[in-house]
Amino acid sequence: MFEIIILLILSAVAYFITAELIPNLSDLFIKAGLFGIDLCKTNKKKVPEAIGVVSGCVFLVTSFIFIPIVFGNGLMDTQNFPHNEFAELLAGLLSICCMLLLGFADDVLDLRWRYKLLLPTMASLPLLVVYYVNFNSTTFVVPIPLRQWLGISVNIGFLYYIYMGMLAVFCTNAINILAGINGLEVGQSVVIALSIIIFDIIELRGDQYKAHTFSLHIMIPYLATTLALLKHNWYPSKVFVGDTFCYVSGMTFAVVAILSHFSKTVLLFFLPQIINFLYSVPQLFHIIPCPRHRLPKYSEETDLLHASRTIIVKKDMTFITKLILQVLTMLHLTDKVEDEDCININNMTLINLFLIKLGPTSEVQLTTTLMAFQVFCTCVAFVVRYPMASYFYDS
Amino acid sequence: MFEIIILLILSAVAYFITAELIPNLSDLFIKAGLFGIDLCKTNKKKVPEAIGVVSGCVFLVTSFIFIPIVFGNGLMDTQNFPHNEFAELLAGLLSICCMLLLGFADDVLDLRWRYKLLLPTMASLPLLVVYYVNFNSTTFVVPIPLRQWLGISVNIGFLYYIYMGMLAVFCTNAINILAGINGLEVGQSVVIALSIIIFDIIELRGDQYKAHTFSLHIMIPYLATTLALLKHNWYPSKVFVGDTFCYVSGMTFAVVAILSHFSKTVLLFFLPQIINFLYSVPQLFHIIPCPRHRLPKYSEETDLLHASRTIIVKKDMTFITKLILQVLTMLHLTDKVEDEDCININNMTLINLFLIKLGPTSEVQLTTTLMAFQVFCTCVAFVVRYPMASYFYDS
Repeated sequence: MFEIIILLILSAVAYFITAELIPNLSDLFIKAGLFGIDLCKTNKKKVPEAIGVVSGCVFLVTSFIFIPIVFGNGLMDTQNFPHNEFAELLAGLLSICCMLLLGFADDVLDLRWRYKLLLPTMASLPLLVVYYVNFNSTTFVVPIPLRQWLGISVNIGFLYYIYMGMLAVFCTNAINILAGINGLEVGQSVVIALSIIIFDIIELRGDQYKAHTFSLHIMIPYLATTLALLKHNWYPSKVFVGDTFCYVSGMTFAVVAILSHFSKTVLLFFLPQIINFLYSVPQLFHIIPCPRHRLPKYSEETDLLHASRTIIVKKDMTFITKLILQVLTMLHLTDKVEDEDCININNMTLINLFLIKLGPTSEVQLTTTLMAFQVFCTCVAFVVRYPMASYFYDS
Repeated sequence: MFEIIILLILSAVAYFITAELIPNLSDLFIKAGLFGIDLCKTNKKKVPEAIGVVSGCVFLVTSFIFIPIVFGNGLMDTQNFPHNEFAELLAGLLSICCMLLLGFADDVLDLRWRYKLLLPTMASLPLLVVYYVNFNSTTFVVPIPLRQWLGISVNIGFLYYIYMGMLAVFCTNAINILAGINGLEVGQSVVIALSIIIFDIIELRGDQYKAHTFSLHIMIPYLATTLALLKHNWYPSKVFVGDTFCYVSGMTFAVVAILSHFSKTVLLFFLPQIINFLYSVPQLFHIIPCPRHRLPKYSEETDLLHASRTIIVKKDMTFITKLILQVLTMLHLTDKVEDEDCININNMTLINLFLIKLGPTSEVQLTTTLMAFQVFCTCVAFVVRYPMASYFYDS
C-alpha cells in the first residue's frame, strides 16, 4: 500500500512536469522539422508532431525512479531479493523503451511498412524471454462447453509465444489506425488505461494480486503522463502525438497483458480497436480501393466533419469485393451511392462509420462520442469478464 | 565457450546487416533533414547525420536475440535460473537503449546542455539499482603505500553511487568532445572496445571470469556493429555518426565498467579522452575564450588541416588565465603568438595539440595518428594494470 501512495505522488509530479515540458519543448520540434498541419482547421498553423516522445520519456524516468521504492523491502534483505520480479519490470521497461525509440525514429525518418511490423516484434523479445523464464505457461484454459472435445486445458506450446508477439504488434498498430482527429489516440488510451486500472483494483483481493500490483506499477505513471499529453492534444490540438505515442501505448498495454497474464481481458478493452481493424481489413488489404489518407473530410463553411469516401470502379470488382459490399450493406455498415460505372462508399474506419450514422459532426463532438463508445465497450468487457465468464469457466 | 561461438556468428551477421543498412537508409536521414556538411572537404555534399542510431539498433537487437542463447543452460533448469545475472543484462541493455533514444533525440532536436548532463544520469539509474541489488559493494581497496593511514579498504558508501553515475556522464561526454574529424569518434571507440575485449580474455582464467564473460557478451556485438559503422564513417566519411553514437558508446563502456567491476581499468583505457578533457577544461569553463567550434581549420589549397586558434584580449586576462598560460607554455603544450593587445593560441583540444606538434597534416593521417596514440595508451594501461599494479596491490 505504502509504495502505491509513493507512486501516486511520483505520478502527480510526472503529470505536472510533462504538462510543463510539452509547451516548452514545442519550438524545438518545429525547428527540427517535426510538425504537421491540422487538416480539420481553417488556420494552417504548424503543430509540433511526435510529442509522445516527451510523455514517454517522463513515463520511463518515473518508472526508473520508482524501482528502488517498489523493491525497497527486498533491498533490506538482499538474500531473498525477488530477482525474477525485478527482471520482469526491467524487461517490460526495456520493451517500452525500445518502442519509444522506434516510434520516434519512425516519426523522424518515416520508415517503410515492413519495419513497422518487424520492429514491435523485435522490441517484444525481452518480454518473451522473461515470460519464458518466469512462467513458461503456454496453456489455455478451455471454456466449459468445449471441454468434452478439448479437455480442461490445451497446451499450445511455441504457438503461445507467436500469439504474444502478435499481441504486441496488434496493440501497437491498433491504436495507430484508430486516429486522425484531435485527442482520439490519447483519449482512447486513457480509457483503456483506466479500464485496466479498475480491473487491477478489483483483482487486488484475488490470488493474482502480485500480477495486478505489477500492472498498477506500470499503468499509474503511464496514465499520469498520458493525461498531461491529453491536456495539450485535446481539441483544438496544440501538439500532435505521433506514431511514438501509439507505439509506446500499445507496447505498454501489451507488457501488462503478457506479464500480468490477462491478455484476453486486455483484448476485451480493445473492442473498438478490434472493430475498427476488422472494418478496415477490406481496405488495408486493398480488396476495396484505399486512398493514402482516410481522415474525415472537413468543411470550412460549417466547421463540421463529413465521412470521407472512396470510389470502386464496377468493372474492376472481383467476387470478394462484391461479397463484402453485400454483407456490409445488409448490416447497414456502409453508405453507398451507386451510378452506372462506379460505387461511391465511405472509407471504412470506425470514425467514418460514426459520421455516416450521426451525420456531419463537429470534431470535438466526434472525439467525445468515440470515447463514450470506448467507455461503453469497457462496460461490455466487464460484463463479459465477470457475470458471463462464470458460465464458461469455473469461478 | 559454445555461446561465445554463437555470439561471434551472430555478431558477424550483425556486421553485414549494419554495413548493408547504412547506405540503404542514408537517403531517409537526408530527407528528414538529418544531414551535415563536411567542413574539411572541398565538395559541399550533404552527409547523413546521426547514423549511430542504425548501428545502435542492430547492436541492441543482436543482444536481444542472444539473450535466450546465453541463458540457454539456465532455461533447461528454470528452478536454478540465474535471475540476478539476467536482471544485470536487462538493466545494462535498458541503460544503453535509453541512451540511444536520448542521443537520437538530441541529434534531432538539438537539446540544451543541461539535458545532456541530466539524461545520462537518468539513463544510468537502472544500472545503479541492479548494482545495489546484486553487489552493493561500495568498497575501494587501498593501495599498499597508503594503507598505514587508510587501512586495507575504504567503504565510501553512497559516494560510490555518485562515482558510478558520474562515470556514465563522463564516458558519454568524453568521446563526444574528442571528435570532429572523419572516423575519430568511431575509431577511438573501436580501440577502447578491443582493449576491453583483450583484458576480458586475459582475465577469463581468473576468479572474476563470470564478470568478464558478461563483459564479452556486451562488447562483441558492440564491436561488430561499430566496425560496420567505421567502414562508412572512415575518411572520406559517407555518413556522420552523431551524438547518438557517442552516447551509446559511452554508456556501453560504463555498463561494462560498472557491472563487471573494472571501472578503474576502463578509465585507464580512456587515457586520451581524459587528457583531452583536462586540456579542454580551461576553455570548457570559459577561463580561456571558447569559440563555438574548435575543429581544426581546413586549407583548400593544400588539403591539409591546421590547428584552429582563439584570441585572448590581454586586458581581460585574470590571474587564473595568466597562470594557466604560464603552465601550458612551460610544458610546451601550446602554440602562442603574442602582440601588444592580444595573445593568439591554439584551441585546446588533443586534435589541435597534435596539429601544432606535427605541423599541418592531412585528415586521414591525423585520425590514424590519434588512433595510434589511443593504442599506445592502451599499452600503457596494460603496463599500469599488470606489472605496476602488483607494487600497489597484493596480487
